[in-house]
Amino acid sequence: MTQLFPHRHLLGIEGLGPQEITALLDLSDGFVEKNRSADRKSNNLRGKTIINLFFENSTRTRTSFELAGKRLGADVINMQVSASSVAKGETLIDTAMTLNAMHIDVLVVRHPDSGAVKLLSEKVNCAVINAGDGAHEHPTQALLDALTIRRRKGHLDGLTVAICGDVLHSRVARSNIHLLNSMGARVRLVAPRTLLPAQADRLGVEVFHNMVKGLEDVDIVMMLRVQNERMKGNFIPSIREYFHFFGLDYEKLKAAKPDALIMHPGPMNRGVELDSDLADDVERSVIREQVEMGVAVRMACLDVLTQNLAGGNA
Amino acid sequence: MTQLFPHRHLLGIEGLGPQEITALLDLSDGFVEKNRSADRKSNNLRGKTIINLFFENSTRTRTSFELAGKRLGADVINMQVSASSVAKGETLIDTAMTLNAMHIDVLVVRHPDSGAVKLLSEKVNCAVINAGDGAHEHPTQALLDALTIRRRKGHLDGLTVAICGDVLHSRVARSNIHLLNSMGARVRLVAPRTLLPAQADRLGVEVFHNMVKGLEDVDIVMMLRVQNERMKGNFIPSIREYFHFFGLDYEKLKAAKPDALIMHPGPMNRGVELDSDLADDVERSVIREQVEMGVAVRMACLDVLTQNLAGGNA
Amino acid sequence: MTQLFPHRHLLGIEGLGPQEITALLDLSDGFVEKNRSADRKSNNLRGKTIINLFFENSTRTRTSFELAGKRLGADVINMQVSASSVAKGETLIDTAMTLNAMHIDVLVVRHPDSGAVKLLSEKVNCAVINAGDGAHEHPTQALLDALTIRRRKGHLDGLTVAICGDVLHSRVARSNIHLLNSMGARVRLVAPRTLLPAQADRLGVEVFHNMVKGLEDVDIVMMLRVQNERMKGNFIPSIREYFHFFGLDYEKLKAAKPDALIMHPGPMNRGVELDSDLADDVERSVIREQVEMGVAVRMACLDVLTQNLAGGNA
Repeated sequence: MTQLFPHRHLLGIEGLGPQEITALLDLSDGFVEKNRSADRKSNNLRGKTIINLFFENSTRTRTSFELAGKRLGADVINMQVSASSVAKGETLIDTAMTLNAMHIDVLVVRHPDSGAVKLLSEKVNCAVINAGDGAHEHPTQALLDALTIRRRKGHLDGLTVAICGDVLHSRVARSNIHLLNSMGARVRLVAPRTLLPAQADRLGVEVFHNMVKGLEDVDIVMMLRVQNERMKGNFIPSIREYFHFFGLDYEKLKAAKPDALIMHPGPMNRGVELDSDLADDVERSVIREQVEMGVAVRMACLDVLTQNLAGGNA
Repeated sequence: MTQLFPHRHLLGIEGLGPQEITALLDLSDGFVEKNRSADRKSNNLRGKTIINLFFENSTRTRTSFELAGKRLGADVINMQVSASSVAKGETLIDTAMTLNAMHIDVLVVRHPDSGAVKLLSEKVNCAVINAGDGAHEHPTQALLDALTIRRRKGHLDGLTVAICGDVLHSRVARSNIHLLNSMGARVRLVAPRTLLPAQADRLGVEVFHNMVKGLEDVDIVMMLRVQNERMKGNFIPSIREYFHFFGLDYEKLKAAKPDALIMHPGPMNRGVELDSDLADDVERSVIREQVEMGVAVRMACLDVLTQNLAGGNA
Repeated sequence: MTQLFPHRHLLGIEGLGPQEITALLDLSDGFVEKNRSADRKSNNLRGKTIINLFFENSTRTRTSFELAGKRLGADVINMQVSASSVAKGETLIDTAMTLNAMHIDVLVVRHPDSGAVKLLSEKVNCAVINAGDGAHEHPTQALLDALTIRRRKGHLDGLTVAICGDVLHSRVARSNIHLLNSMGARVRLVAPRTLLPAQADRLGVEVFHNMVKGLEDVDIVMMLRVQNERMKGNFIPSIREYFHFFGLDYEKLKAAKPDALIMHPGPMNRGVELDSDLADDVERSVIREQVEMGVAVRMACLDVLTQNLAGGNA
């Protein structure tokens, strides 16, 4: 095991200390520079096998992990499994144990159920990276967000970050809250009551139901994707009304600091949670940098976890 | 052509002699050890192209072949073709000839129709591996089963093997019957009359319709997957009744030898053909070893067939 | 930028001069020979990343590009996106910019809308190859057709080429018309009035509505695929009637030169646009050679565009 990140798996941000997070971000910084050079490919993971096991469709995240793995020289195999076609519980574990028997090195898993990735990780010898499980965690997203902020602002501690929108359904929000708290940033949640988890105030955050108040003097505005498919009229009355109250536009942004950065995990619903011009405003929006950081962060995670396997695996 | 396996294709087990089967198993043994080492990757197939041409969905078998090919250094391309969207006959051949024109080395083919893979193999210059055609053959499954048994029992000849369940629809059963007969094992089929082929007694096997009688003193119990999707009430009255009479549990297993091994080609229907605890009983069940052997057997087949191409191809 | 093909993208044939087309064909010739040798793999594109971004399903074209990229040593990632699931316009661009942020080298794009690939190319730093956009262009198909003809006839200039069938919906026809005109061949379109574009006579071609007249003394007969899915009784009365008047058979072929070649971009509807025996007649049909040339042409295009990136990219 490496001293700096002594874990077999990356299942979530909860429980990681600032030194561990900093170690991953420092390693990621190196991959950002390497990806920007002409010589992007390495052999760090030559001979290693990574399986992208996705029980939910996510072309974007799968592509980012696939690219990260291939750039490090690993063999990458995609397994798209329709969650509707598998019985829950045992079959998930049978799938895990089947892949484990093939002597693979890393399993990157996305699953619609919170906790499914942890359950799976307990059954295998390889490293497991959680690429999003239900409304629970999406740790590489929080790391790439942190890397984007740190490269722009120089640090995370002391910053005020507003996470806005559908917090209730968002694993991105949950992972970011853990990371930002751990790194000494102040977190605000800005959302209608219907889109907040029941005990949001126990998460170590400030809660706002009004965008202008919530954005006051913040350094970072993280917009969340409105997951229309999960809502169906239960949580928001209409898209137009949602954008009026909780969509980010230039007017509401005036409340934030003049150099506040705008972030979004993608894919965006332009005109729903975020004004389209603002999304493309390279003075304020770092949305494309987030994508770039995502590949680097995933390379760092794959690299460190396979090193840990080599050192401490049976 | 290598002396030990002088064939261009691997279309089935029928017709293979014990020396040929032994040659493939010996070669596979080496890949088992290599896969268990830290240095799993080789360059044996560098520059070779393998296409996984699957007209039926099978994530598990496709992944095993993809991993086997990549671990040998080949380029592997997946082609998933919906069988429902293609006309039969000529279009299958047009697909084959199209891929053949691309100068590929190995075609791994799964198809819902018995005989389709052989038809295709007659039109191409590359090597063809049958990854399952209808209810006909699935040769790499029989080889991996044989490798699993041989490594546990030391030999195949003289063993008594019970193949239990839906023999009628099973290419796995058919390939295993050919292999076990060729290697001098005794084969029993244990199934209700409705799940046996019409002339089962001509296959060189003993037939039983009662599990306890069929399992008496056997060395190996091979359970088959109940293919619910092909049954629809025609063959079995209910899952519960099926499990009562033909599902394997500890009670029925008492009839077998005390060290009898339990096998299943996967994926399992736990509680349908096999008691769930028994499936996980590492004293008796070698189901996960079968998966491990699968990768090694496929590496051996890919390796020997590409060597044959190099020696004897136009 | 290379002198011979000084472009960042390959979006279409329209606008390319004979020297540029000749440069790509000459380069392709080398890859044909390399693919026919035992040593097909090179490292030309080692460390490069190619993404096959397909908004339309096309297993055949995707496989050809994937094979071409892997044979050159590139990492190839497939992204199949359902066009029905994406909003048009901005979302297409967001997808492009997301991939661009990942520092990829080549995007190979197929899209159901004419012009979508060009729109996308304007937003990215990487090279873009149009793998077919609506009824607009499919440049690598025209190049592989030209390579097939040139290798058989020794030249393109002065030949008479009949393009027959559903010209209206065909990007293959459009790219071929541009290429053949540019290279000094004479082009005839042979089709029912309902399957010709409104201003076909402005394309620099001769138009025929009768196969025997249209094929008189031609050197090359290019049959197009009847795209049943786009027709639904609007354009042709019945398959039988279509074949009677516009399907190619031995009888109609007598009008052409005795050594006229038959081509088809695939996949064929045997017995609809082309007699099945004629399709397989190796004296006349070069359909399988077209597939072989396709891989070589795509290797040439990938090779030259990545060289251009290295020379002239920011």
